[in-house]
Amino acid sequence: MTILYTLDIIGTFAFAISGALVASKKKFDIFGIIIIAFVTAVGGGILRDVMINYYPINWIGDLNYVWTILLAVVFTFLFKSKIEPLRKTMFLFDTIGIAVFTMLGTEKCLNFGLDPFVAVIMGVVSAVMGGVVRDVLTQKTPLIFKKEIYALACFIGSLVFLGLRKIGVPLNLQYTLTITTIIIIRLVVVKYKLELPKIENDLFGLLKK
Amino acid sequence: MTILYTLDIIGTFAFAISGALVASKKKFDIFGIIIIAFVTAVGGGILRDVMINYYPINWIGDLNYVWTILLAVVFTFLFKSKIEPLRKTMFLFDTIGIAVFTMLGTEKCLNFGLDPFVAVIMGVVSAVMGGVVRDVLTQKTPLIFKKEIYALACFIGSLVFLGLRKIGVPLNLQYTLTITTIIIIRLVVVKYKLELPKIENDLFGLLKK
Amino acid sequence: MTILYTLDIIGTFAFAISGALVASKKKFDIFGIIIIAFVTAVGGGILRDVMINYYPINWIGDLNYVWTILLAVVFTFLFKSKIEPLRKTMFLFDTIGIAVFTMLGTEKCLNFGLDPFVAVIMGVVSAVMGGVVRDVLTQKTPLIFKKEIYALACFIGSLVFLGLRKIGVPLNLQYTLTITTIIIIRLVVVKYKLELPKIENDLFGLLKK
Repeated sequence: MTILYTLDIIGTFAFAISGALVASKKKFDIFGIIIIAFVTAVGGGILRDVMINYYPINWIGDLNYVWTILLAVVFTFLFKSKIEPLRKTMFLFDTIGIAVFTMLGTEKCLNFGLDPFVAVIMGVVSAVMGGVVRDVLTQKTPLIFKKEIYALACFIGSLVFLGLRKIGVPLNLQYTLTITTIIIIRLVVVKYKLELPKIENDLFGLLKK
Repeated sequence: MTILYTLDIIGTFAFAISGALVASKKKFDIFGIIIIAFVTAVGGGILRDVMINYYPINWIGDLNYVWTILLAVVFTFLFKSKIEPLRKTMFLFDTIGIAVFTMLGTEKCLNFGLDPFVAVIMGVVSAVMGGVVRDVLTQKTPLIFKKEIYALACFIGSLVFLGLRKIGVPLNLQYTLTITTIIIIRLVVVKYKLELPKIENDLFGLLKK
Repeated sequence: MTILYTLDIIGTFAFAISGALVASKKKFDIFGIIIIAFVTAVGGGILRDVMINYYPINWIGDLNYVWTILLAVVFTFLFKSKIEPLRKTMFLFDTIGIAVFTMLGTEKCLNFGLDPFVAVIMGVVSAVMGGVVRDVLTQKTPLIFKKEIYALACFIGSLVFLGLRKIGVPLNLQYTLTITTIIIIRLVVVKYKLELPKIENDLFGLLKK
């Protein structure tokens, strides 16, 4: 699947840039920036592969990911002031990234013979955990825990993928529909500033009102 | 061992609630809360299983843990205001949790043929690390490093378990005595607000006094 | 290689002390201090071994590391006030530590049949990640991301090691030259307070000047 692979590389590139931008804001030096970019881009996949005991883990099995990340850091270094106004483009890339990561993560676990529900969780882990580790290493509260229904979009997309596979839809359509679902959810969520409920009140608090 | 399994599930439930409460205080959304609850409840076991290369790791091998965690989040969502006054009950559940996690973690490693001292360390890791990851992800200083002799209780319990196994005490008694030991240490420690020494002074500082 | 093993133990000792000092400054109790010392000393190796699926991971395969770490904590407890003025000695030990960790990590991965570039990255991971986890657990911004060209020294040393292996230099010389390279870079960097560039400006910012 060359298109899928291309999208995966684009996602990796976008994730690495997001890591590089956060790290450069924190005044990390160039090597620190590379490490954060690396962790952001492949952290979710590492965690997934380690948990399912898959070997070789993502970036060890295919060094193209490493080159893509290094390219993204160079790119950030050269065009930083141009990237920030391009926030919409970056957001689109990032969204493509999580969509592809979710789907490929889910698929890998299904092909590995894991329970479908485990595969769904692993799809979310693949897409989400890189950003979480980035935020931990740069001492920010992980945003995805608070905003933008990030993980939920991945979760729903992963369920859609599961459903399409069960129905027996052709592979290309499975991929296209899953990715489109996640992208659309993300776009709608961010456009209308939707947020998931928090647990500030409980049942009794709500009943009292 | 149905009783042991039940206690393990109770511990998972208590750990997940503790994660959910911390995350909801940090105003995480419901998906963020689920992730923190999950990590708190199975993080220690994941770390242990990954380090000893045991597969499938805890929650992948038995989805009941995942359902328990989701139930705990729903429970927190419904009864949050009722849980907080129940601090003593929660503390008891949590203590049962660390006791069972310590013992099962130690036993798993011994059955896996590891050195007894490695098994003891892994017992502590199983019980303690979920809470540490929870605190890291919610940007708190991990409490267990400072207070309540949390890890030491697990360590002693694990040693007791080792001793009982060596003596050849019947299995049920091994379990009961180990769990009781950890619970009693925790209760005594918290009741009398005992604390371990810190390294504020050293030998020379102490001699000078 | 007894000399190499000795250096590895010295490095472990130095790393454990650095962990113990940071943790005691944060007022962790003695058990918390042991955990941080442990994580600092073997965290990088754990991460490496888990990623390359090597088993048994470092400290499980050789408990001498664990004893060394416990000894380092006792040492810190006894001589804390004497260690701090010995900053230069400690710095030297620490530098020996990263040099040996880098080289042994790289070598292990090469012997394991991994791609040389992966081996270089893993060498850096072995040397650097223990300190990163220490800083995360004690809520400090990981220093190595900002200062002292820490990771770069390891990276260059690892490349030198690769080169020497390719040329076919005798093993002892490979070891000596690699370790010397890393130590010299570190000494020069710290002496002249060299720093890597950050990404504060980009190409366009530089051109405007």
